Amino acid sequence: MTVLILTGEEDVTADMVVMHLNASGVPVVRLDPADLTAGVALSGEYVHGSFRGHLSSGGRLVSMSGLRSVWVRRPGVPAARAAQPSAWLTEESSQALYGMLRSSGARWMNHPDAAHRARHKPWQLRLAQRSGLPVPATLITTFPQAARDFAERFPDLVVKPVSGVHPQEPPMAVPTSRVAPDTDFGAVAYGPTLLQRRIVKRADIRLTVVGDTLLTARKAAPADADPDEVDVRFASSATLWQPAEVPPRVATAVRAYIQGAELAYGAFDFAEDADGTWWFLECNQSGQFGFVEVETGQPIARTIAEWLARPDPQEPEHANGRRTVAP
Amino acid sequence: MTVLILTGEEDVTADMVVMHLNASGVPVVRLDPADLTAGVALSGEYVHGSFRGHLSSGGRLVSMSGLRSVWVRRPGVPAARAAQPSAWLTEESSQALYGMLRSSGARWMNHPDAAHRARHKPWQLRLAQRSGLPVPATLITTFPQAARDFAERFPDLVVKPVSGVHPQEPPMAVPTSRVAPDTDFGAVAYGPTLLQRRIVKRADIRLTVVGDTLLTARKAAPADADPDEVDVRFASSATLWQPAEVPPRVATAVRAYIQGAELAYGAFDFAEDADGTWWFLECNQSGQFGFVEVETGQPIARTIAEWLARPDPQEPEHANGRRTVAP
Repeated sequence: MTVLILTGEEDVTADMVVMHLNASGVPVVRLDPADLTAGVALSGEYVHGSFRGHLSSGGRLVSMSGLRSVWVRRPGVPAARAAQPSAWLTEESSQALYGMLRSSGARWMNHPDAAHRARHKPWQLRLAQRSGLPVPATLITTFPQAARDFAERFPDLVVKPVSGVHPQEPPMAVPTSRVAPDTDFGAVAYGPTLLQRRIVKRADIRLTVVGDTLLTARKAAPADADPDEVDVRFASSATLWQPAEVPPRVATAVRAYIQGAELAYGAFDFAEDADGTWWFLECNQSGQFGFVEVETGQPIARTIAEWLARPDPQEPEHANGRRTVAP
Repeated sequence: MTVLILTGEEDVTADMVVMHLNASGVPVVRLDPADLTAGVALSGEYVHGSFRGHLSSGGRLVSMSGLRSVWVRRPGVPAARAAQPSAWLTEESSQALYGMLRSSGARWMNHPDAAHRARHKPWQLRLAQRSGLPVPATLITTFPQAARDFAERFPDLVVKPVSGVHPQEPPMAVPTSRVAPDTDFGAVAYGPTLLQRRIVKRADIRLTVVGDTLLTARKAAPADADPDEVDVRFASSATLWQPAEVPPRVATAVRAYIQGAELAYGAFDFAEDADGTWWFLECNQSGQFGFVEVETGQPIARTIAEWLARPDPQEPEHANGRRTVAP
């Protein structure tokens, strides 16, 4: 049984996982959907009530029914590197590839539907609340008056994008920023705006979930931290990520979240306040983990490899080819 | 409790359903996501573990928790008609609107995840097989040799797109066509190709599923039908759609399909052969029904209205805000 990894050629993080899979002798096929029709080929046959499918990449042929798991890491746009790329060829290739993989019976990290759903920030916030995670007071609105009222109730606010990453080429991460006290919220009418109570944080928490395993890292905020540097991704940093313990209540809530989201992998970001409360900021279903592994020495890549390599747990398969995420 | 209909202004099919909802006194809000930030506004607040959200359209305000059901009919691209449209504004608006609706607790026709999944033709074919529906022998491939072998085993073939509709502006339906006996399959290497055994049909079947209700229509093929006119959408037509009975075995299989697909609405196309077997061609989760209703007099719009209007069945809600499709 083979592990299929969908990602581009240059992906050091995938390399780390492949190394572990190779070491344990698990067959791996690595494939970029962008190479479809030029280097990657597929075939699937539906005859007499049964299905037989194959993928070929770099001269290796793998049967769809021989797939143990699929890791959707950083796949390219299907057929993007074909001799004559087009929107039509991309659509045809995407439907053919993912349509077959969706009924392969393999376990997914993460299933495309779960991954798509998990990107919705408003849905994340609600699921976090329902899972028992503390969520900073948040408003998403196109009503200027709602923004003004919210700013009166919560005077110390940050603003961040609803969707995460700006779709320019290359994509741009939009930093979270503080809202000035005298802000005029009139422009809120022209685009949904996410305002959130600023957590005065003494540390950033990165909690990586792989299946049932929680790997927690903490990065203390320097005592002289600039209060305007609210986004850890853009902050200058003298301190390092350190392994940390996850409080049992948080662990329970995180597991409820991951189960509700039907994710096999998720990277949670929390802000730890002066009282030690971990405030949920987001859960990124495709969050990077290389930097945490390097600084903390936590075996995230190995844990992912183990999850991908795990033998088929003989779960009942859904009629639609989906499986529930096994613990 | 309000029914929310996401569609454009010009939608006669939606008008038919709205008429029935109005007649039974059920509140309806009709909204096009394309009008976001210009005519349509939204706001959602996450405070102290709970969520309160609102939508406003054409001066009407509706609470997210007051939504009974959401009908995703023909929604426009979010914020497409904003004063200054952009990919970024569309992404932000899409995430804000659908992210909130996804945790509203309303029943969906159809849920966006189920709708997205249901568009994958290879997945449809496999689910149809698993549900017990006869599927014509089908090959989807980029291997010319696989196509040649298949054509030897099944000499009478049709070719159709994997994905359905060509993404030009306006979108173009690509007709299903017969494959000539001397076809050179070399070009298959340049794009996934779907080949299917041609069913010599004596009738087309359109089976519309609304919740638990099956509405079946049949259109006999004229005796002098041109055998090259395989696609009912493009065939000239003297005969009309007529109401038909669904064989019990087909009904059971169709219900298994709809349940596996987690759909509340689906339009099945079958080809009936000389033996009376109904061969599964596809299930379109957003298939038109107006033409069938007009020709058969079947109450499809009314059945949809009844499904949308049905009081909350007090089902346990998933932690992630999804509901299973109630029968």
